Amino acid sequence: MPSFTTTERASLKEMIASRQPGHGLPRPFYHEDLLLRAEMEFIWRQGWLFAGHSCQIPSPGDYFLYEVDGDSVILIRQDDGSVRALYNVCRHRGSVICGEPEGHVKRFICPYHQWTYDRSGRLLLWRGMQEGLDKSELGLHPAHVREVEGFIFISLAQEPPDFEPAYRTIAPVVHPQGLTHAKVAKIMDFDVHANWKLVWENNRECYHCNVNHPQYIKANFDHYNADDTIERIATQLEKVTARSKAKWEAQGLAVTRTETGLTEFPDPDHHIWYSANRTPLVDGFVCESLTGQPVAPLMGDYTDPDVGTLRVRMLPNFWNHSSCDHGVTVRLTPSGLTGTQIRMIWLVDEKAQEGKDYDLETLLPFWLLTAEQDWQICLNQQRGVSSHAYTPGPLSTYKEYNLENFLRWYLQEMASGIG
Amino acid sequence: MPSFTTTERASLKEMIASRQPGHGLPRPFYHEDLLLRAEMEFIWRQGWLFAGHSCQIPSPGDYFLYEVDGDSVILIRQDDGSVRALYNVCRHRGSVICGEPEGHVKRFICPYHQWTYDRSGRLLLWRGMQEGLDKSELGLHPAHVREVEGFIFISLAQEPPDFEPAYRTIAPVVHPQGLTHAKVAKIMDFDVHANWKLVWENNRECYHCNVNHPQYIKANFDHYNADDTIERIATQLEKVTARSKAKWEAQGLAVTRTETGLTEFPDPDHHIWYSANRTPLVDGFVCESLTGQPVAPLMGDYTDPDVGTLRVRMLPNFWNHSSCDHGVTVRLTPSGLTGTQIRMIWLVDEKAQEGKDYDLETLLPFWLLTAEQDWQICLNQQRGVSSHAYTPGPLSTYKEYNLENFLRWYLQEMASGIG
Amino acid sequence: MPSFTTTERASLKEMIASRQPGHGLPRPFYHEDLLLRAEMEFIWRQGWLFAGHSCQIPSPGDYFLYEVDGDSVILIRQDDGSVRALYNVCRHRGSVICGEPEGHVKRFICPYHQWTYDRSGRLLLWRGMQEGLDKSELGLHPAHVREVEGFIFISLAQEPPDFEPAYRTIAPVVHPQGLTHAKVAKIMDFDVHANWKLVWENNRECYHCNVNHPQYIKANFDHYNADDTIERIATQLEKVTARSKAKWEAQGLAVTRTETGLTEFPDPDHHIWYSANRTPLVDGFVCESLTGQPVAPLMGDYTDPDVGTLRVRMLPNFWNHSSCDHGVTVRLTPSGLTGTQIRMIWLVDEKAQEGKDYDLETLLPFWLLTAEQDWQICLNQQRGVSSHAYTPGPLSTYKEYNLENFLRWYLQEMASGIG
Repeated sequence: MPSFTTTERASLKEMIASRQPGHGLPRPFYHEDLLLRAEMEFIWRQGWLFAGHSCQIPSPGDYFLYEVDGDSVILIRQDDGSVRALYNVCRHRGSVICGEPEGHVKRFICPYHQWTYDRSGRLLLWRGMQEGLDKSELGLHPAHVREVEGFIFISLAQEPPDFEPAYRTIAPVVHPQGLTHAKVAKIMDFDVHANWKLVWENNRECYHCNVNHPQYIKANFDHYNADDTIERIATQLEKVTARSKAKWEAQGLAVTRTETGLTEFPDPDHHIWYSANRTPLVDGFVCESLTGQPVAPLMGDYTDPDVGTLRVRMLPNFWNHSSCDHGVTVRLTPSGLTGTQIRMIWLVDEKAQEGKDYDLETLLPFWLLTAEQDWQICLNQQRGVSSHAYTPGPLSTYKEYNLENFLRWYLQEMASGIG
Repeated sequence: MPSFTTTERASLKEMIASRQPGHGLPRPFYHEDLLLRAEMEFIWRQGWLFAGHSCQIPSPGDYFLYEVDGDSVILIRQDDGSVRALYNVCRHRGSVICGEPEGHVKRFICPYHQWTYDRSGRLLLWRGMQEGLDKSELGLHPAHVREVEGFIFISLAQEPPDFEPAYRTIAPVVHPQGLTHAKVAKIMDFDVHANWKLVWENNRECYHCNVNHPQYIKANFDHYNADDTIERIATQLEKVTARSKAKWEAQGLAVTRTETGLTEFPDPDHHIWYSANRTPLVDGFVCESLTGQPVAPLMGDYTDPDVGTLRVRMLPNFWNHSSCDHGVTVRLTPSGLTGTQIRMIWLVDEKAQEGKDYDLETLLPFWLLTAEQDWQICLNQQRGVSSHAYTPGPLSTYKEYNLENFLRWYLQEMASGIG
Repeated sequence: MPSFTTTERASLKEMIASRQPGHGLPRPFYHEDLLLRAEMEFIWRQGWLFAGHSCQIPSPGDYFLYEVDGDSVILIRQDDGSVRALYNVCRHRGSVICGEPEGHVKRFICPYHQWTYDRSGRLLLWRGMQEGLDKSELGLHPAHVREVEGFIFISLAQEPPDFEPAYRTIAPVVHPQGLTHAKVAKIMDFDVHANWKLVWENNRECYHCNVNHPQYIKANFDHYNADDTIERIATQLEKVTARSKAKWEAQGLAVTRTETGLTEFPDPDHHIWYSANRTPLVDGFVCESLTGQPVAPLMGDYTDPDVGTLRVRMLPNFWNHSSCDHGVTVRLTPSGLTGTQIRMIWLVDEKAQEGKDYDLETLLPFWLLTAEQDWQICLNQQRGVSSHAYTPGPLSTYKEYNLENFLRWYLQEMASGIG
């Protein structure tokens, strides 16, 4: 089993200790292969990872693959409606069983020697094998999987952290959005030349929004912070919040976020980091679209477009922003020290028809522009933090407190893994 | 000299010991750089490697290059008709001497400072060098080379294993095929994203043939094994064998393989692994072609197309299948842990003329299709064995006994090298 | 800080010791990652590196980037006319500040959070940061920089070697060339698949010129050495030298090189390696051009084209050949063990107009052909020295004495760094 030598652990501890609170991470965190290996073992292979959406596999036998850290995992809808996660590796000679990234199967038949498994991974047939072997021991290896309101999470850990607290937080907030009866309007993949942590660091502050995200800041309050929420903005937010609260309560939608600025991640003590909240949009915006107006039919339980914006996140690889009419999911997957594969998924109501009920030209731009602005930022930062001259600077306590929280989480998990 | 530290040797021994008999190789065998280095030193630089065909360099001064493990070796026909293997590295400043992969030279003239060597590698001229140096010590470094019935093998070892047993086995079986007066009809190169051992593992069993090789199984018996050779097939094989035996003995062709299933590698005890045998084809097939009929003029000593199929192999990088009218050679060269460069060479009689006596459209497909089917299989397996979830499964004692032999050879050689 | 373990230092010392005087470098010098790391630390990050030309940034606020060993350095003209070298890394979160390879700025504004620096690197503005932080400590990190007669050199070292001796040698020899009021006629970039030392080894001898550089040898004497300077050539050189000397002295141009063969590098004892000299061209040539005649207006102080050729070099990354009418600069930057990025810059007088006073078709070929011939040579050598069979050969004491000097310099610097 690949693990870490005493010297390597000492070296990792030294790296962890070298970080000055209130500052960014030192250069080795973006530069050392050893660190990436440790992140894979202590973070990516320990926690829960977003794999995809329930609506990508509506019917029994539907599957898609999620490939992470060299592993290919099959997410497949079972006959009883549940989802299983199975490693895409034949138990005979190790061939992948599903070559295509998504599809539908009656049974899994390995293309090499036709060992045949049912949809749950149980080995059914193995022509040509000798007597005396036990088929029941040779089913496809399973991974842990949890489905919550249209999101599918997996864990590659032997014993993953308890998912229940996350489930209890996420489920009630997300339920009204109706993501369990959504459909995929568009999937886009990006190969961003930046370390995965830089993508999160970017996501965890809106200090950069004013200049970089002209579309985003029109709709949102969260680029305002304690230091620059002028009275006019504070009053506006108060009014919007009061109005939204009254209205949403009547619809059974909890308002869980009423301040400016970004929300914090709760509960870093249980080794699982998630959040879910609903927050008001700026007056005149009932949707994160370029016009602020809906770009698709209302989703889920909503009867009025004025539901603010719903936000769900789980470290280390997932966030979703949903408006009344559509949702946008981002999934991160590291590819080496200086690369991150990023998948964006746009969701609309399952009954909405493209060309009639919505158009990609109006559905995509708000988040596509904002995302591409962020990817460029991450790339610029990657170029700089690789430099020998890079020294971590001070973080703004007004504007980068959530980034500081992210780094605290990250360092805590790493330290806990290294032991 | 690059070699292995005590820690590295211990780590290699642990890997070797981790393999469970009757099962595939564990993940590190396809994943660790250390292992690849050890394979290069203990297998690829120790044994004999197929470089190319005698007929690629018919006349004195004709040469071709074989590039393996960072080394470029010149195979050149000498004035006395023999072949020499010379490292393509000038003894002055180390420039390659032959830039082109094949050609004809009177003498070797280094393009850098025109140091000049004769065809045997002896240094003749070195304008501008001072007195007091000894030219005779500065000839091109030679590698070991052996030519056997149209095949050229080299060894990069200081003291290669004794080639005589291989020569004595291969020469009489191959002689009637007339490969010494053949010509190249086609060379094709493939860059297969799979570890070189996976290519051999695939080659050493026909368990996968039924579904994957629709063309191959029409012509051959070797996908039948003890467990599935039904009576009709057994009878058919018996008849074909009896008839072939009588006929071939009359022509002086030894029948050396009369059972279904793949032949074993003989003689792993002498650190050289080769085999050569002739085996019958299915009734109605006198050629490994799509129709079963010859696709080129008869080769060598053959007067009747019904000569079955001739098969020659040498580990770690060579096999040849020859029919009455053409032969197909496969040469493997590792390129990193997860890549293999594969060259296929189609041979016909030297007097055969393309467009008149044979066409590539009928000559190539049988083995080209079969090969490409195999490369896809290997690629699928590479994807899977890279997974952390890959665990080696049991091998079929009915169908994968030669694969087990291959692995035994491999592990024995590695263990012997590690010491 | 990444540095070297005791084992690594021992291994480096062993490599250094393995080199036999009067011979090339052994294979590990072109093959081991450890060695490249050591070269970066002990040579490239210790000495002075040529970055570019003064005339690339004539006006205050003009800048260009030089990227080396993962670092991006901004060379920017200051308001007082001097040049500064600033690391292109924001002191906040490490983003690069200048994305474009060259341009003009009033102030540096980081694209991420708009931290704003003046042209000298001083931090001016940082909207949103908390009280109690000291702006004056967070200016852009500077690198050392020296400008000498139109050449800009930088050093990434904390304490670079004294530049004064180099300045005193180079300035008077280069001054008449007028490179401070030149302009760039053409920049070309080459990605050469060869270790940076091979490019220097090639540059440090003209043993290879006869056959490889048909254009170059028509104009120059330096491919003649003690062993092959026939009487006719010696007489010719003597005449040219005498004539040139008289003429040049009248113009205040020092003749600093009158023998055939290449000049030596002076002063390896002060850890800085440079040379600058003027040397005659062959009769009939007053310019390193294909015809031997000027291809652009006279530069600098020259009133007569017959000024021979001016040559300036500094290890590890720079040389310039200048004729009466134009200069050609070569800048080397390692990219890994087996790659060198090479930039060539052609300079002419700043008042010369393309299409009227000069044409690229006549300006470029002499050095472009010669350079491309050399890059091919280096590539051939790289292929060979990677071979396990490569053994360093004897160097010609007649023709490769400067290469021996280069290697001595290199090994001395490495040994001194390793300690």
